[in-house]
Amino acid sequence: MSSTVGQVIRCRAAVAWEAGKPLVIEEVEVVPPQAMEVRVKILYTSLCHTDVYFWEAKCQTPVFPRIFGHEAGGIVESIGEGVRDVKPGDHVLPVFTGECKECRHCKSEESNMCDLLRINTDRGVMLMSDGKSRFSINGKPIYHFVGTSTFSEYTVVHIGCIAMINPAAPLDKVCILSCGISTGLGAALNVAKPKMGSSVAIFGLGAVGLAAAEEARISGVPGLLFPIRFCSMEFVFYDADQYTCLVRMNKLAKKFGVNEFVNPEDHDKPVQEVIAEMTDGGVDRSIECTVSINAMISAFECIHDGWGVAVLVGVPSKDDAFKTHPMNVLNERTLQGTFFGNYKPRTDLPAVVEKYMDKELELEKFITHEVPFPEINKAFDYMLQGNSLRCIIRME
Amino acid sequence: MSSTVGQVIRCRAAVAWEAGKPLVIEEVEVVPPQAMEVRVKILYTSLCHTDVYFWEAKCQTPVFPRIFGHEAGGIVESIGEGVRDVKPGDHVLPVFTGECKECRHCKSEESNMCDLLRINTDRGVMLMSDGKSRFSINGKPIYHFVGTSTFSEYTVVHIGCIAMINPAAPLDKVCILSCGISTGLGAALNVAKPKMGSSVAIFGLGAVGLAAAEEARISGVPGLLFPIRFCSMEFVFYDADQYTCLVRMNKLAKKFGVNEFVNPEDHDKPVQEVIAEMTDGGVDRSIECTVSINAMISAFECIHDGWGVAVLVGVPSKDDAFKTHPMNVLNERTLQGTFFGNYKPRTDLPAVVEKYMDKELELEKFITHEVPFPEINKAFDYMLQGNSLRCIIRME
Repeated sequence: MSSTVGQVIRCRAAVAWEAGKPLVIEEVEVVPPQAMEVRVKILYTSLCHTDVYFWEAKCQTPVFPRIFGHEAGGIVESIGEGVRDVKPGDHVLPVFTGECKECRHCKSEESNMCDLLRINTDRGVMLMSDGKSRFSINGKPIYHFVGTSTFSEYTVVHIGCIAMINPAAPLDKVCILSCGISTGLGAALNVAKPKMGSSVAIFGLGAVGLAAAEEARISGVPGLLFPIRFCSMEFVFYDADQYTCLVRMNKLAKKFGVNEFVNPEDHDKPVQEVIAEMTDGGVDRSIECTVSINAMISAFECIHDGWGVAVLVGVPSKDDAFKTHPMNVLNERTLQGTFFGNYKPRTDLPAVVEKYMDKELELEKFITHEVPFPEINKAFDYMLQGNSLRCIIRME
Repeated sequence: MSSTVGQVIRCRAAVAWEAGKPLVIEEVEVVPPQAMEVRVKILYTSLCHTDVYFWEAKCQTPVFPRIFGHEAGGIVESIGEGVRDVKPGDHVLPVFTGECKECRHCKSEESNMCDLLRINTDRGVMLMSDGKSRFSINGKPIYHFVGTSTFSEYTVVHIGCIAMINPAAPLDKVCILSCGISTGLGAALNVAKPKMGSSVAIFGLGAVGLAAAEEARISGVPGLLFPIRFCSMEFVFYDADQYTCLVRMNKLAKKFGVNEFVNPEDHDKPVQEVIAEMTDGGVDRSIECTVSINAMISAFECIHDGWGVAVLVGVPSKDDAFKTHPMNVLNERTLQGTFFGNYKPRTDLPAVVEKYMDKELELEKFITHEVPFPEINKAFDYMLQGNSLRCIIRME
């Protein structure tokens, strides 16, 4: 790879020219990394709903043309000035949020919301240095997405957004740990912290919700099924026939240790009341992994008084309001939010990868599809049809 | 005292015949305790705002005639069948909420909200046995209040609501640990858990808020002032001139280690924004000790993202709605409620009394007034005028 160091690399990237229009595989130019930046050869990337959300650009400032992608695994091609933590050849996961290791958040044991490198979905350039894009076509800049833009054979990422991992880890599996799966795992492990024998309600059976279920399962005694009691379905993302989805996803969810299901549409009363009746007053923990404000409120109101903890994971719309009677709080319930499962990307992700290497965590269950890079638009179709959890896109 | 065992005791009690009307000292008959009950000779009682709230009965089912009072210290006169934990002569604090030691809540390390003996403000009788009152005047029952009714020289209380304490502890001081002071202390110690050097915003400078401040102070390094940064005033209870209250209460609050004050009325913008600006993004912990829904929302929104914890203590009105943007939660903020500071009354209160005996906790600061029993209505006046924190009522 040394021949490309310091050179502009011409390679393939999937460019989103317009909101909601199929990506186009183009030849792009990727300039060398500047100070504190890393150029990464992407081997595998996967599609997360956040890519789809910003590609549809229904509720956000449209930033186009843009290269999406933020779940990926790759190998460092070259490094910019000042980069000490990785070297060419290292195996890495680029992450949509960073860890500068210097700010109050990075120094706090409780937070992973780095002041410097916190996710910025409007950002289309490398803000930490010259404020320009590293991608171009015929001299015209193509914008970045959340500092990662992994739908490209090469990308440039700030060192603060690079987790160096075990080179023995298969990148076609652990690439999915860059975002959604780690978010769900961490929401359960780092925030909800269910105790042995707890009941856990998970709202939303996408990859994030199932990752929360997976972590709850592996938090139990080895060999015993951790009683994940309820999975309330909220198909907020899917346009496809909801009933079919429900049946398919339930079948899938059983692989994750989920043993009971509640479909809010099967009941006349609010789902929180249904859950409270089924569990003698409420569940011990709930984890909300949708973007529905009603699911967020239900997730809080379905926990038991005295000790219940509700964890919000899903990103709400800007006009949403979380509304509940304050007595629900006062009766010793806890409401917590989490961002990326409270994992600090550089410090904590390597250990999540090791959990997979130790066969404690099963990632294969999440990978429902795989396509070669030129067929990347199929991954979008699978997700929009509610057919996939994770679709791996092979760059080569 | 043995001569009264098994006998009806005739003694003085302050009876509330009607909502909002001065109490009348009457001679009442107090029957002996039934199974699992204890008859207590009250030596000192104090007035808490909850007494005033239910005496005014503006928003609740009026239960009259009634004997109020739920912060007190006394000596066991006699015990009913099955009582093993206390004996005549023991020094005790009656508590408005109980601990049966058998239910899921009592068995949980996280909860103190006993299923059997949880506070019930509508209850005017001994619900656990015959559903009757132990007080009467000329055969006509006088109702109990929250199972304690300490505005009487003798009262009958369920053993689950009796904390046995060190007999060396002065009852004219530790009697105030039965309710508000412990609630504030526990909200800080057991729930907010500020770390050394944390900033803590306390909303409401009544006895509960100041007790939270006191606990924050004593959680610091001995000899160093714990930086309790902000005390936002919410004089929701007081009819008296608010400015005078503010000055007087600020002066008092300084004794509790409070070193900065924010009066929402001094600012055009919401107090949470003022606090966030003063603290580089928000406080580490906030403790809300008012009954104002706006204060509850401000207390949550003034905490720092990434690690902030807001604790709600004040009991809201039944029509209130806690409303915030879900992003405030998602950005790693925690909202928790507490009831009686998460203390289990029988298990934990004796240790709180010891904290006073060890001179770690200063109770004298809370006691602003003292009156003999026949002048009990003065205690109501002091509180309604916003003049007092705690007024001790001497029974003899």
